[in-house]
Amino acid sequence: MEHDYQLILNEILREVEALKGQGEPAEYIPELAKVDPSKFGASLKTTDGSTYTIGDSEERFSIQSISKVLSLVLIASLKGEGVLGRVGVEPSGDPFNSLAQLEYEHGIPRNPLINSGALVIADMLISSLSNPKEDFLAFIREISGCANIDFDVKVAHSEKLTGFRNAAMANLLKSFGNIENDIEEVLDFYFHQCSLSMSCTELAKTFEFLSNGGITIHGKQVISSSQSKRINALMQTCGFYDEAGEFSFKVGLPGKSGVGGGIIAVHPKEYSIAVWSPRLNKKGNSLIGMKTLELLTTKTGFSIF
Amino acid sequence: MEHDYQLILNEILREVEALKGQGEPAEYIPELAKVDPSKFGASLKTTDGSTYTIGDSEERFSIQSISKVLSLVLIASLKGEGVLGRVGVEPSGDPFNSLAQLEYEHGIPRNPLINSGALVIADMLISSLSNPKEDFLAFIREISGCANIDFDVKVAHSEKLTGFRNAAMANLLKSFGNIENDIEEVLDFYFHQCSLSMSCTELAKTFEFLSNGGITIHGKQVISSSQSKRINALMQTCGFYDEAGEFSFKVGLPGKSGVGGGIIAVHPKEYSIAVWSPRLNKKGNSLIGMKTLELLTTKTGFSIF
Amino acid sequence: MEHDYQLILNEILREVEALKGQGEPAEYIPELAKVDPSKFGASLKTTDGSTYTIGDSEERFSIQSISKVLSLVLIASLKGEGVLGRVGVEPSGDPFNSLAQLEYEHGIPRNPLINSGALVIADMLISSLSNPKEDFLAFIREISGCANIDFDVKVAHSEKLTGFRNAAMANLLKSFGNIENDIEEVLDFYFHQCSLSMSCTELAKTFEFLSNGGITIHGKQVISSSQSKRINALMQTCGFYDEAGEFSFKVGLPGKSGVGGGIIAVHPKEYSIAVWSPRLNKKGNSLIGMKTLELLTTKTGFSIF
Amino acid sequence: MEHDYQLILNEILREVEALKGQGEPAEYIPELAKVDPSKFGASLKTTDGSTYTIGDSEERFSIQSISKVLSLVLIASLKGEGVLGRVGVEPSGDPFNSLAQLEYEHGIPRNPLINSGALVIADMLISSLSNPKEDFLAFIREISGCANIDFDVKVAHSEKLTGFRNAAMANLLKSFGNIENDIEEVLDFYFHQCSLSMSCTELAKTFEFLSNGGITIHGKQVISSSQSKRINALMQTCGFYDEAGEFSFKVGLPGKSGVGGGIIAVHPKEYSIAVWSPRLNKKGNSLIGMKTLELLTTKTGFSIF
Repeated sequence: MEHDYQLILNEILREVEALKGQGEPAEYIPELAKVDPSKFGASLKTTDGSTYTIGDSEERFSIQSISKVLSLVLIASLKGEGVLGRVGVEPSGDPFNSLAQLEYEHGIPRNPLINSGALVIADMLISSLSNPKEDFLAFIREISGCANIDFDVKVAHSEKLTGFRNAAMANLLKSFGNIENDIEEVLDFYFHQCSLSMSCTELAKTFEFLSNGGITIHGKQVISSSQSKRINALMQTCGFYDEAGEFSFKVGLPGKSGVGGGIIAVHPKEYSIAVWSPRLNKKGNSLIGMKTLELLTTKTGFSIF
Repeated sequence: MEHDYQLILNEILREVEALKGQGEPAEYIPELAKVDPSKFGASLKTTDGSTYTIGDSEERFSIQSISKVLSLVLIASLKGEGVLGRVGVEPSGDPFNSLAQLEYEHGIPRNPLINSGALVIADMLISSLSNPKEDFLAFIREISGCANIDFDVKVAHSEKLTGFRNAAMANLLKSFGNIENDIEEVLDFYFHQCSLSMSCTELAKTFEFLSNGGITIHGKQVISSSQSKRINALMQTCGFYDEAGEFSFKVGLPGKSGVGGGIIAVHPKEYSIAVWSPRLNKKGNSLIGMKTLELLTTKTGFSIF
Repeated sequence: MEHDYQLILNEILREVEALKGQGEPAEYIPELAKVDPSKFGASLKTTDGSTYTIGDSEERFSIQSISKVLSLVLIASLKGEGVLGRVGVEPSGDPFNSLAQLEYEHGIPRNPLINSGALVIADMLISSLSNPKEDFLAFIREISGCANIDFDVKVAHSEKLTGFRNAAMANLLKSFGNIENDIEEVLDFYFHQCSLSMSCTELAKTFEFLSNGGITIHGKQVISSSQSKRINALMQTCGFYDEAGEFSFKVGLPGKSGVGGGIIAVHPKEYSIAVWSPRLNKKGNSLIGMKTLELLTTKTGFSIF
Repeated sequence: MEHDYQLILNEILREVEALKGQGEPAEYIPELAKVDPSKFGASLKTTDGSTYTIGDSEERFSIQSISKVLSLVLIASLKGEGVLGRVGVEPSGDPFNSLAQLEYEHGIPRNPLINSGALVIADMLISSLSNPKEDFLAFIREISGCANIDFDVKVAHSEKLTGFRNAAMANLLKSFGNIENDIEEVLDFYFHQCSLSMSCTELAKTFEFLSNGGITIHGKQVISSSQSKRINALMQTCGFYDEAGEFSFKVGLPGKSGVGGGIIAVHPKEYSIAVWSPRLNKKGNSLIGMKTLELLTTKTGFSIF
């Protein structure tokens, strides 16, 4: 189907103007609270190679939980089907950092896209990689094709100082035997992974393999076509915490959000898109980001459903 | 994409043979327990008009919770966007009949595809229709094109005699003010709706409008294209109780199961498919039905992701 | 220990004056909402036969959940130790009408003094008595020595019309097999039991057997001394829903409250006391009633601890 | 009331013989698992100064959670009524180490006798004492009159190595702002407090002030008479995790258990008693210890109810 994506993005840019000032940026990570909350950008990359952008599409921001998809992809590429013994694939129906659910379910996180699940994936990566943080970074640089993508050490440090709930979760996982490595090391890796600083265009390029059967922009098969589909399915049902249904209902694309205000979404065989706007709705997802994607699939009349 | 669906279905028929005898048919509705548990059939209908079948595809069975999609469609066609004030669109992450969740969330069901949500939809239909049961049946006969589809009154009665949990849920909803009509009337409508007796081929024909932008096999626009997408999105995230993620992960299609052993699934713009096999897995979904759909999207290499 | 109880009660009467107007009477039972909310009375009966009263001590009110102790006593007198197989003896830590807890614990109520537990006791009484309501009333008349105590049929009817949550609970219990009789009959008995209309002085006389090793004011051994202690222990840990600890902490006596604003408390070997004031605190217990009992044990310097 | 306590204890010693070998000692703290599980002792101290003992009454063991009462008493003596702003007084109805409840209730522990509550009390003590561990130990030595009572550093260290769940709880409390000090310091204090090694006779002497209106064996008023009653009330409703009702029902005394197999119980104005037997029932309380106390109040016919 032919769409004039640039025209559509330009329209959206005008229409979301009305929402500016609504929502609140994340404040629990002090370093993130310093970002200008009025920023807004988007970048859409089609599988045939075109890129369309609006606003602050080239400015880097903290990708936060969007990184959970990337660590999942890396462990999937390393360990294949063996990944999912220690994490489920069901939507949580609870906030991203619920300990209650983890306790009731005996230390098996519902899925790899909530914090507890991502901590288990981080633990697996530490066990599988020689130099976990360096190797993870190298992987991101490779699939994005951007050699200067890096952790934002200030953000990682800032989160560590206030990350008591993540520490609670890591300790609870360990008490159930679902963390192998030292808790401090797991948290350190996790906070670094979340601190990755990337722009919308870099994210759109990075995630293109999920709209392309697992093949990156440079033609490398990172994960199999089947794995690519399964990760898309996971994002569809679990990518937005307790707002996964709402996103699926209104947008109709697999995606993943981060508290930095970024959202990545994928239309298999068509495009990948990254949006960024720091103000969050009550569920912790970018308010303008959600609207942008809803307008995109409404205006194109085109979603996976 | 061209697929030889008949060939693929024939292969699946051979392969699932190995699973016969696994799982247990639903026993809590006495009348359902009388059905031969070794039955197996499937019917796939493409949007270009072809139908492919295997096994007991023409034998009618109790569609049970599959009917929840149909009552949702009817109320959507009657009331448009006004439907979802009293029901959410989020996956429940809990079994289909959890009262705990309903209590914590103050009588607002998570979505219309779990029992509590379907009871609210039933209540809405009773308020909207002159002769609720008759009008609902007329609607099913119209979209299916099968004038002799009917309720199985024995099944409805059997469920009523043992449906204490559904009665508990209806009373709890009423205590929160989320049921308008008399509880007995709501339960009576609900048990009748669930007792609809249809074959795989009739179901595949009935659900074709969801693979066709809301347009039935006879060319009638039942719901808008946008509503059709949203209902598919709902099925994707909420159609399989606490196994929605698993189904999404392995099959990659929107769908809905019933405890009678039926499953309906939809590939937008491609096909609708109904499968039936009474033995259920531990989550209450047809064991062979799930496998059939997993094999279908694996063999065609083709899902929404 | 010698105390001038009349003097103390008179002091309390003056001191609680300051609290008048605080709290709200129960409104969910329409008939109860008609009672003058400024009523206040108390009656204390010592084991040596003296009675001390203040305020509206002779006016009858709806005893509501206080009746749960009486139905428990009757079934204990009929069935001895066999009673507690179907109900626990642990505090619930949840509101009096939580369905969530009942569901998580598979239909076994935490204790007989919350609604679900009382419904199970009502079911047992129906199975054990020839004319359940009449026999229960005869029992109350006997232990109270007041032949004209009666159900308030208007209150029972009023509660039935709005008692959807109790109906939900009874249905949930039945779905777990923990109700033997017809649900309507169980609810009818339960609503009648709760509608008993008694004055503070009648209640103090009725409950004296619990301060007297199971022996009533007329010298009859209703239950054994050991059963009497156990029922006091149950009231201590479970008599005030999710405020049981607060009551124990501040008052230090076994007791039971009702939403009609009544509270009964017992000091073993010393006295029984009934208090009545319709305005409830946020936990659903009589605000002035709680304060009265706290002042009583503070002023006498004398509780079970 | 006159009782021949020695005779009764001797009888109990014979009767509990039949239970030896039932239950399992705690194994999650490696150092505790080394204790001979067949040990059994008891020591009863009346307020008039007599002491009665049986079995291994003079052998020290790890008092574990019994210490929670002592830290609560110390903070009450230091801060009076100001203590309970950060902890509730309601029974938890959940296991001693539930994170789910703590999360639902926004970081306010149900009561000071469950782990989360004791961690908050530990935090308060650290803020209030110059040399927290040393000062706490001095306090215990003073009220017990035993100058050589000490922490068992091996046990404290053993628990630290495996105490991931307590660490999870401390981090969760901190995330809600209900821990002021460094988490490591709070956990270190808590593990030391639990590691106190005392004999039954030492415990009976130590806890006598709770049967004596707050006055120790040496005549010192540690806490007020009113505080003493309230702490007894707390033990009554909260001293046995999710078996508090059962203990109250069968024993009828305020008490507190520890996973080392110790139990302390108090009969106000009469006696304090300590029992020790390492094998625990399924709820984590000493199996023979519970039975010993049940037999004691049954044989004397004398409890607080």
